[in-house]
Amino acid sequence: MTRWVRFCADDEAIRMGRLADGHIAEFRGELFGESYATGRSFAIDAVRLGPPCAPGKVIALWNNFGELGQKLGKAPPSHPLFLLKPASSVIGTGAPILRPARYAGKIVFEGELGIVIGKRCSNVSIADAAQYIFGYTCVNDVTASDLLAENPDFAQWTRAKGCDTFCCLGPAIATSLDWSQARVVTTLDGVERQNYPLSDLIFSPVQIVSHLSGDMTLMPGDVIACGTSLGVGSMKPGSSVCVTIAGVGELRNTLAG
Amino acid sequence: MTRWVRFCADDEAIRMGRLADGHIAEFRGELFGESYATGRSFAIDAVRLGPPCAPGKVIALWNNFGELGQKLGKAPPSHPLFLLKPASSVIGTGAPILRPARYAGKIVFEGELGIVIGKRCSNVSIADAAQYIFGYTCVNDVTASDLLAENPDFAQWTRAKGCDTFCCLGPAIATSLDWSQARVVTTLDGVERQNYPLSDLIFSPVQIVSHLSGDMTLMPGDVIACGTSLGVGSMKPGSSVCVTIAGVGELRNTLAG
Repeated sequence: MTRWVRFCADDEAIRMGRLADGHIAEFRGELFGESYATGRSFAIDAVRLGPPCAPGKVIALWNNFGELGQKLGKAPPSHPLFLLKPASSVIGTGAPILRPARYAGKIVFEGELGIVIGKRCSNVSIADAAQYIFGYTCVNDVTASDLLAENPDFAQWTRAKGCDTFCCLGPAIATSLDWSQARVVTTLDGVERQNYPLSDLIFSPVQIVSHLSGDMTLMPGDVIACGTSLGVGSMKPGSSVCVTIAGVGELRNTLAG
Repeated sequence: MTRWVRFCADDEAIRMGRLADGHIAEFRGELFGESYATGRSFAIDAVRLGPPCAPGKVIALWNNFGELGQKLGKAPPSHPLFLLKPASSVIGTGAPILRPARYAGKIVFEGELGIVIGKRCSNVSIADAAQYIFGYTCVNDVTASDLLAENPDFAQWTRAKGCDTFCCLGPAIATSLDWSQARVVTTLDGVERQNYPLSDLIFSPVQIVSHLSGDMTLMPGDVIACGTSLGVGSMKPGSSVCVTIAGVGELRNTLAG
């Protein structure tokens, strides 16, 4: 399994590379196309990781885990339910989550599996969908939850989830992952708050990609956040949230304050 | 008032220019920065217009006109209500609207005013918002309306409005427009279906930009579709919809069939 990262070293250039044993082997070229090793290696502690890709769109699913759906009393949907988070909301591991200046309410973490699209796809079948998945990352789908039901006529999903810094991605993209055996573990200030199996997904990654590719063209670098399960909670100023998926790594972000 | 367009001529290069008297004066450089006239002129009939900008995100408002809100029995919101349409949904005037391969239901047109952002902005006041508006365009906010209420637990705004070709923009960006005196006129196969005054906006353009800039950073080229009013309706295969705002021009798209 390869783990791809993007990073900044001694300058502000955005570099990419493969992560192994605490070092990054630098690559040049296209993350979703041809690339080659430069021969340079960087110690992971000497660089700043960025988001592992630069998605044009982030599609975030709701009600995609059996256990959470049951708790909320919601029937499993017949098609993935989703909203979009804008590119302006994306940050990488280590970057601070910022409270919106005009919002004083609760800010909630949601640990999730992220699918990273590798090739443009439209109307693909479930059988063909796997070849369009480049890999997997961790997502913290941060939410200004008091906004969701503020208006009685219109659930404000986009507004609540679209703020700058509210889409934490990383630390890496793992190009192969047996998601069916993996778990999403989220800690808040070191205390475990989520630990759920991806086998409880209502729509699996290939089903998600197939369905969504019928709704809109998916592009290389687009990210699909697969939805969350039990255990979401709110963050205080200074709270550190870590989303871990074994094989992908630890996505760690702190709410500024 | 300047009207900016993007277009293709004899090759596939995307060019930009200023429209006047049936001709386009070509410019090079940055649409939202420095640009200069090349001295070349193209007859409008000899080129294919594209979308007048390439938005990273399109923010589409709901319930932003008094008359339509009253008809639907919805109270005016206290903050703009919105969803995102992805970049993959954008087309220009003259390009066909395509029915999604997996959707057999109603496809609805919605004629709207579009605000085009000219400068990155975050948390701007209403008083300062005007300087971030580059200009205005026409929008047909196409909607697969049968999807909206398909799931009882989650209104599928993004899915219904995010399909490829469902965000028609153009024909031009008018850099100044007295929107308070303008009307949005939409025809279906030549028959007028919408003709509403922009003075009926609940949130004006500067109010919208100020509010939304508090929710997320707005970037040059981002488009805000201001919502629609009375008279939306459905299209049949071959139906041609024309959205006109005097000073901006005619945005004309046909549903393929």
